[in-house]
Parts: sequence; C-alpha cells; structure tokens
Amino acid sequence: MKIFTKEQIIGLLDTDLAVRRLEEGFIAFSNGKVQVPPTQAFTFPQANGDCCIKSAHVAGSDTFTVKISTGFYDNPGKGLPSNDGLMMVVSATTGQPIALLQDEGWLTCIRTALAGRIAARILAPANVKAIGMLGTGTQARMQLEQLAAVTPCRKVIAWGRSDFQLAAYKTFASGLGFEVEVTRDAEVVARNANLIVCATPSREPLLLSEWVQPGTHITAVGTDAPGKQELDPALVARADRIIVDALNQSSQYGEVSHALNAGLIGEQQLTELGALLEGRVPGRDDDEQITLVDLTGVAVQDAQISGCVLASLNSQSTL
Amino acid sequence: MKIFTKEQIIGLLDTDLAVRRLEEGFIAFSNGKVQVPPTQAFTFPQANGDCCIKSAHVAGSDTFTVKISTGFYDNPGKGLPSNDGLMMVVSATTGQPIALLQDEGWLTCIRTALAGRIAARILAPANVKAIGMLGTGTQARMQLEQLAAVTPCRKVIAWGRSDFQLAAYKTFASGLGFEVEVTRDAEVVARNANLIVCATPSREPLLLSEWVQPGTHITAVGTDAPGKQELDPALVARADRIIVDALNQSSQYGEVSHALNAGLIGEQQLTELGALLEGRVPGRDDDEQITLVDLTGVAVQDAQISGCVLASLNSQSTL
Repeated sequence: MKIFTKEQIIGLLDTDLAVRRLEEGFIAFSNGKVQVPPTQAFTFPQANGDCCIKSAHVAGSDTFTVKISTGFYDNPGKGLPSNDGLMMVVSATTGQPIALLQDEGWLTCIRTALAGRIAARILAPANVKAIGMLGTGTQARMQLEQLAAVTPCRKVIAWGRSDFQLAAYKTFASGLGFEVEVTRDAEVVARNANLIVCATPSREPLLLSEWVQPGTHITAVGTDAPGKQELDPALVARADRIIVDALNQSSQYGEVSHALNAGLIGEQQLTELGALLEGRVPGRDDDEQITLVDLTGVAVQDAQISGCVLASLNSQSTL
Repeated sequence: MKIFTKEQIIGLLDTDLAVRRLEEGFIAFSNGKVQVPPTQAFTFPQANGDCCIKSAHVAGSDTFTVKISTGFYDNPGKGLPSNDGLMMVVSATTGQPIALLQDEGWLTCIRTALAGRIAARILAPANVKAIGMLGTGTQARMQLEQLAAVTPCRKVIAWGRSDFQLAAYKTFASGLGFEVEVTRDAEVVARNANLIVCATPSREPLLLSEWVQPGTHITAVGTDAPGKQELDPALVARADRIIVDALNQSSQYGEVSHALNAGLIGEQQLTELGALLEGRVPGRDDDEQITLVDLTGVAVQDAQISGCVLASLNSQSTL
C-alpha cells in the first residue's frame, strides 16, 4: 500500500484533471452509477468534536474510496487544526488497500472548491462585475483561487465577522491579483457582486433575498450537515434555477431543505449538478436570471479526487 | 500516525487482555454506551467481491475505530487471499488519526474467535464430551485454538465438505493436541459433541434440531450477512437460552432472523451477550439445557480489539 502525505498530495494533484473527474463523477452519480452507502456520523460532545465517514464507488472504476473526516473545534486551543482526515483507496477488483492519502482534510477542501469552480463556469453571468465572498477561512480562499480560473473578473468583495480575519483575507486576495473590498455587512456584498460564494459554517441566513441583484449566481457550500444555513429561504425560492449536488442529501439538510420545509419550493424544482453537466436540463438562459447551486458534498467527489491523485502519480511515473 | 503490519499485530496482541476488552465492549454495547453507525456495504458483482465498513466508539474511550473488510472470492485464483482489511484508530479527543492496523482481516478473525471463547466459557456444559466443529477454514481453526483455553476437552469432531480440507484440519487440530475425528456427515457431529461451533459461510441449515443432544451449547459465527444460515430454525426455537451479540443485527440477518421470520420464536426470547456477561440474565441452569449464541459480529469488537493492540504496544513500551 502506498502512503502519501498532504504535501505529496498537493504536489501531485492535477487540477484540470480533477475538474474533469469531478464532472464525470457528478454525472455518474446523477445517473445512479455510483454506490454511496449512507454516511456514518459520530459526535463527541465532551471534546466538541464530530466525525463522518463517507464512501463511494463509481461503476467501472478500479478503485473505491473510504474517507474519514473529523472536526474537533477546541483543537485550535491545543495548537492543532480543527479539521483532519484521510482517504483510503481500495481495489474494486481484489479488495486490497491501494493507497492511504493522509491529506489532513485538504482533498475535501479542494474538491469542494473545484465543485464551486464548476458551478460558476456553467452558471455565472457573462459579465461578472464583482465576486462576492461570504467567509474568510480556508474554503473562502480556495474558492477564490478556483474562480480565478473561470472568470476574468479580478474584483472581490469579502464579508466576515472579524476585522482581523477580513484584513488577512484582503492580503491573501490581493496576492492573487484581486482588487479587494472587505465588509461586515453582507448587504454590501449582495448589492455589488453578481457571482457570490457562501463559504461559512453559519447556522442562520446571511444573505437576504431583497439584497440580491437580478442576474446573480450564488454557490453555497457551507451547509454540509443538519442545522447549517447561509441563505434566506425566500432567496432559494426566488432563484430561476436551483441546482443541488445530491437530491436526497440537499433536501435533508442543504440550503434547499429550509425552503422545502417552509413550503416555498417543491422537490420538482430541484435539479442535480450532474444532470446540468450532462446537458439534460437547461442552465442560465439570460443575464437577469438568478441561479443557485447548493453543494452539501457527496462521497463521489472523494472517490474521484482520490482516484485523480493516483492517476496523477501514475502519469508522472510513466513520463 | 503509527502503522502496523499483520505480523506486528499478531506479535503485539495480548489475548487475555483482548478477552477482557471484548467483554467490556459487549457490556457497554448492551447498555447503549457505544456509538455504532449503520454498516456501509458495497458489492462488486463483476469481481465477485464485497466490502463492509464498520465503525464504533465506546463511551469514555480515547479512540474510535473504522474498519474496512473486503471479501473477493475469485482472489484465490489470482494467488491472493479472499479476505483483506484494515482498521484505522482515530483520537476521540482531537480527531487525529493515531494508528493504521494493516491486519489483512486477522483482527476480525481473532475477535470473532475470542467471542466464541467467551460464549463457551459462560455457557458450555460442565462436562464437554467432544467439541464439534462445522467448518475447516481459518475461523474453524482459530475457534478451536481459543476453546482450548476454556475447556479441558481435547477431542474434536470436525465436519467439512472436502476430504482434502478435512485432512488438513485433522493435521492442524492434532498439532494442538486434540484427538480428531473428521466427517462429511453433520449428524455425526451433533450426536457426539456437546460444544458445537458453526464456522462456515453456509446459506442453508447444516445442523438439524433432531440430531442435537440435550445439554449442548452451540455458537454460530457464520451468519455475518443477509442470506447466510447454518442452523435449523427449529433448533433455534428449541434452545433454552438464545443469546445474540446485537439484537438489531441478529434479528435482521443472524440465525435467529430465520426463526423469527418463521414465527418460531419471539424477540422477547432474545438476550444480548453483554447482558449475560453483566449477570443481568441467567446463563445455563443445568446440564440438560440447550444454549445458543448467535454471533453476527459488531463493530464494538473492532473498537475493542484495535484499542487492545495499542494498549499492548503502550504496555510493552513502558516495561
């Protein structure tokens, strides 16, 4: 069995290949070609921690992937990062373990950011005036890095709760070549940006419907577990296109779950990202539509990104 | 993260400590003190393989365990063992991976054999005339090795479908100091042994009720998945004590599921092994009772045996 550290994995990953693999994965998933057993979840209340185990196999793939992700929110006080994790890649032809990817959660971050990139490439308005970023953490940084690959826009308006973190985000985004505005008022983001990414662990709506301009695309990535919410349910209902990564998951705890529960939308209005990628449903029709992609995170992304790391390794070996 | 090979794990494991840890685990499980998310299961029909992922955390433990077990039944034709697997031990206080146990499925085998040993120690009749063993594979060998620790009986009657495998089993058991009889007729086992272990992957009853003698104890370990069966449901119904490792699992696919589905027994007749170990329910009252332990295999055993490997390591380190 091969064992890789986070640094090796970051060095190996071919981002363009990963985008293609993720798109193929979303399509296979939406066509029922992926085995995705129910997520295993643990809570550790005494340590303010949780863990989830996600596994997937894409039909026809030589491997399947089991991912362990942990979040222990008192870790920073101990000098440790809050999140950790690893992926095990196992042969789907012999059952033998093939690789242990000790990515410390990085692969989950990058596959989430790449899903945001894919969503923006398909649904962002033709003329992005400014990127709006809710959040200043790792995911908010990786989303901006990936958006730079699919839009020429180099203006970002970032929202956060802390001036200190906003200042750090400004330094980061300036380093990427962006003109950066920071604010503690989410309305400023909504009124001035028309490509908005929500990348926070919020448990209450941050983005209200009345603030959002016609033509805006919104990608929400924060609602990866029950109890989380970033969007006003009225905004979800107002969207002309509502795309989700996984119908069953999103309707349980994604942004759309809140709008469904409030009776503001019906399940028939939801479309999976894989169906959109395959061209089975329409994307954006004009620059006045509001489009929404609600990403809860599905195990097929883990299977595809880990397979991509191994493929990158093999292609390097044969060069 | 520490990484251990199968050979290192076999060398490290303190069997007596493992028995104690497993008993504590069964008791904690039966008291609702173990988080056991639903098993994740994959099938790979084209490769004649399957995989299950079992995870558990015992309340108060510093660690939790995620186990990947695979069975690929065409592997022997490729010169590979059918079964493989590993366990990941993760900190329940920080979420960091602590150890990777590359046991290749050995820990699952030994924790199952030790559960059989625990069952026999509590429920076997006072005077074991002969041990009956249905099966000749790895598990049938490990069960016999472990029974030798809890009964002075050194006579075994082994049943199998192949003369070749029976001859090999005879050599193995003789090497342990047993007087060995082999047969292809399970009735011979049932009529002459009063401590019987069923350790086969059978999908139909092997042991009929009318053959079994009063006073016999039976441990069945083969029904670890839907579709498997080793015992006549009438034998299950005839037992004076029906002990299961996990009520929810056993009633779904254990030996007892067949008797439940046939209406021969009711769920109120089932008792968990943990309750028996804790003394909350009676064990064997006399030498005429038939006792049955139906072991489907629960993730708490994996958590306890992997924790035991690490404890054995730590105790060696501090010597």
